[in-house]
Amino acid sequence: MARRGLLLVMSSPSGAGKTTLSRMLLAADSNITMSVSVTTRKPRPGEVDGRDYHFIAKDAFTAEAEAGGLLEWAEVFGNFYGTPKKPVEQALAQGRDVLFDIDWQGTQQLAEAMKDDLVRVFILPPSAEELHERLIRRNQDAASIVAKRMAEASREISHWAEYDYVIVNDDVDRAFAQIQAVLTAERLRRRRLTGLTQFVRDLTKGL
Amino acid sequence: MARRGLLLVMSSPSGAGKTTLSRMLLAADSNITMSVSVTTRKPRPGEVDGRDYHFIAKDAFTAEAEAGGLLEWAEVFGNFYGTPKKPVEQALAQGRDVLFDIDWQGTQQLAEAMKDDLVRVFILPPSAEELHERLIRRNQDAASIVAKRMAEASREISHWAEYDYVIVNDDVDRAFAQIQAVLTAERLRRRRLTGLTQFVRDLTKGL
Repeated sequence: MARRGLLLVMSSPSGAGKTTLSRMLLAADSNITMSVSVTTRKPRPGEVDGRDYHFIAKDAFTAEAEAGGLLEWAEVFGNFYGTPKKPVEQALAQGRDVLFDIDWQGTQQLAEAMKDDLVRVFILPPSAEELHERLIRRNQDAASIVAKRMAEASREISHWAEYDYVIVNDDVDRAFAQIQAVLTAERLRRRRLTGLTQFVRDLTKGL
Repeated sequence: MARRGLLLVMSSPSGAGKTTLSRMLLAADSNITMSVSVTTRKPRPGEVDGRDYHFIAKDAFTAEAEAGGLLEWAEVFGNFYGTPKKPVEQALAQGRDVLFDIDWQGTQQLAEAMKDDLVRVFILPPSAEELHERLIRRNQDAASIVAKRMAEASREISHWAEYDYVIVNDDVDRAFAQIQAVLTAERLRRRRLTGLTQFVRDLTKGL
């Protein structure tokens, strides 16, 4: 059945497991791909242009944003990051889904541009203690980074009510199954099933 | 996490597999129960009051309907059928889900009364030929019944656009997995998670 793709946003505070869940989803589901952002910052060692980011000059970024070619964008520490509109529109039209790793501000911009195509999932840690432990495990030698992440977590979490679904990640396999269920269900939404009108017409002809 | 229950409506033409899928769901999922209708028709052999229907007198039915105690009702061949409001409200408040086997007319009434709690799934047969074969298998000696059901199917199917999700039942296990995914996803909807405000408050306190 032909259908329009969807945009899946997973947001969460750092340490809630979003990156792990994104990787699991991309590995398990060949119909969803990660959105590749454009950025004006320099590539870091190991980063590949076109895979991790599209690295572009600031002039090009500004021109793209002014031409309405970006679905959302932000400035972080003097660098610009944005989501190009064209590949997203192409994916949707071809029935492919796109995964976004963006925060609540990017999600708000995306919602303005693509409301009907958007599925917003917020991932919460099971408790503050657990989040703290996970951050310590990840940043073993930098207590100041952990403290900073905890403060940021509070701000990020305050936007939970702007999301369609909320998943508490107390068990990564369970949380992953829940994300898969959301994706399976949202793909069955009547309004995305662009082939349905024709399907029903053919079906009814035979009755 | 405390949550409000939901109302799951599965509608389909006769022969599309709705009854089988309902039974599978009730057997697999202890948190969903079938809504028990009230009816003014006489019990058939084997039917149990309170399990299959609540059998009541016509006066009682009319009084209940006039008092606003029914979420939806219909008259079929001189008998009245309806869904009592009270047990549904109780289930929702306790976080239990309720399954409905009603047609598009009942679904429309339910949507007026309980829009936010309602999840509407339409089950389609894979083809007219397959539907015809299934009806013949079920009604081996009554060609007139098969012809009647085929005509009814056409009318029922014409309401597919009033549903939230559409599942094509070409494989019963696949269709069942899809219904389970819809149920899992809809249970994670932020607006049903009544315990979330408190959960986030406790979580944020520790950050």
